[in-house]
Amino acid sequence: MIFRQLVDKETSTYTYVLGDPSSGEAIIIDPVFENVERDILLLTELGLTLTHSLDTHVHADHVTGSGEMRRRLGAKTVMSCNAQVECADIDATHGQVILFGSLQIEVRLTPGHTSSCMSMVFHHNNETMVFTGDALLIRGCGRTDFQQGSAATLYQSVHQQIFTLPDATKIYPGHDYRGNLVSTVAEEKAHNPRLNLQIDEATFIGIMDNLNLAYPKKIKESLPANMACGELARESAP
Amino acid sequence: MIFRQLVDKETSTYTYVLGDPSSGEAIIIDPVFENVERDILLLTELGLTLTHSLDTHVHADHVTGSGEMRRRLGAKTVMSCNAQVECADIDATHGQVILFGSLQIEVRLTPGHTSSCMSMVFHHNNETMVFTGDALLIRGCGRTDFQQGSAATLYQSVHQQIFTLPDATKIYPGHDYRGNLVSTVAEEKAHNPRLNLQIDEATFIGIMDNLNLAYPKKIKESLPANMACGELARESAP
Repeated sequence: MIFRQLVDKETSTYTYVLGDPSSGEAIIIDPVFENVERDILLLTELGLTLTHSLDTHVHADHVTGSGEMRRRLGAKTVMSCNAQVECADIDATHGQVILFGSLQIEVRLTPGHTSSCMSMVFHHNNETMVFTGDALLIRGCGRTDFQQGSAATLYQSVHQQIFTLPDATKIYPGHDYRGNLVSTVAEEKAHNPRLNLQIDEATFIGIMDNLNLAYPKKIKESLPANMACGELARESAP
Repeated sequence: MIFRQLVDKETSTYTYVLGDPSSGEAIIIDPVFENVERDILLLTELGLTLTHSLDTHVHADHVTGSGEMRRRLGAKTVMSCNAQVECADIDATHGQVILFGSLQIEVRLTPGHTSSCMSMVFHHNNETMVFTGDALLIRGCGRTDFQQGSAATLYQSVHQQIFTLPDATKIYPGHDYRGNLVSTVAEEKAHNPRLNLQIDEATFIGIMDNLNLAYPKKIKESLPANMACGELARESAP
């Protein structure tokens, strides 16, 4: 199995490539518009053909590269059915499986940061990986104060869909602002300051209601661009 | 085996933690002074005891955290014997093995970017990893125009010490400025624009002689600090 994590330095966004060496088929999770050239070069050098581009949610802090991956490589765009994004080729439902070569990844809807959030679970050999987007971050989680966010919903998503995975499951988030790249279910259950197992739902809601965060800088440009799979960004690019 | 790669966003430096879960013993490679708190918190949460802190070379672009790791955690500092750094607890020679718990990592001297460069080779199960510092970067290599750098020496180091490892060996570099995190020996042999197998030593020397790079911004502060294992940085910290 080919696996790569990639960093967007400006927004601390993580992009992931998973590939099946035997067929050469691959998927990408959360590509960033500005990094499409980098990512396509890597896919080419690794001999991979992109079948799907998955967005964990409608991002508010950067523009997705999924539209470009479809336009240039023919990859199908995949988003949560809750995103109600007309440009998506596949409106993924809970439990839906995306096949690439002999491999597969399972979609779990994990709303709460936004209504459109989904996580993806991947099993290979004896290892489980979960790509959590902004639902669960390393020692944190996504904010719940816009895009139909809900702290109560996020609490249930994390506890029911992510913390029920095996303790050794590797957690690959959508961002990390301190330079961490990966965690595990066991670690977050023990050490996540907002979501460790000692914290009940009411306490979590209280934490999230009092974050007093500034509005994301790029939200006005990002949301309409991402509702169109990032294709507006190309039209307005210099 | 516990393995973590960590990013310093400001300098795009990568730090690595390798740990033995059975004994709890661990090593760190290229800690960054400003990230010592983050790294110690992670070690604590993972239940790891740091035995050694290894610097791949005397860095010119950031200050090492190795001195702090020794002062606060008792870790032994390890540098190449060619670095001639008085503060190092272990002046590692070519082929020297560093033990931590039931695991071990092998030092290979790989001068050329600087005279003090070393790489570390780690075998676990059927996987080989090499931590190359700035000797070999992803699709690149370290410059060779200061700190006793030599393009001819670097060419020999990469070809004799790194490209002789199995093709599937994962390469973990000291930096990447485009957001890539890992490569393989096969990839670099095929796609490194300076060091792929089609490029002979004379051509490589010609490439390196014509880079015309600006001098590193932090070299005046970094070199004396790193010759003292970073301990000067603490003394001058606000």
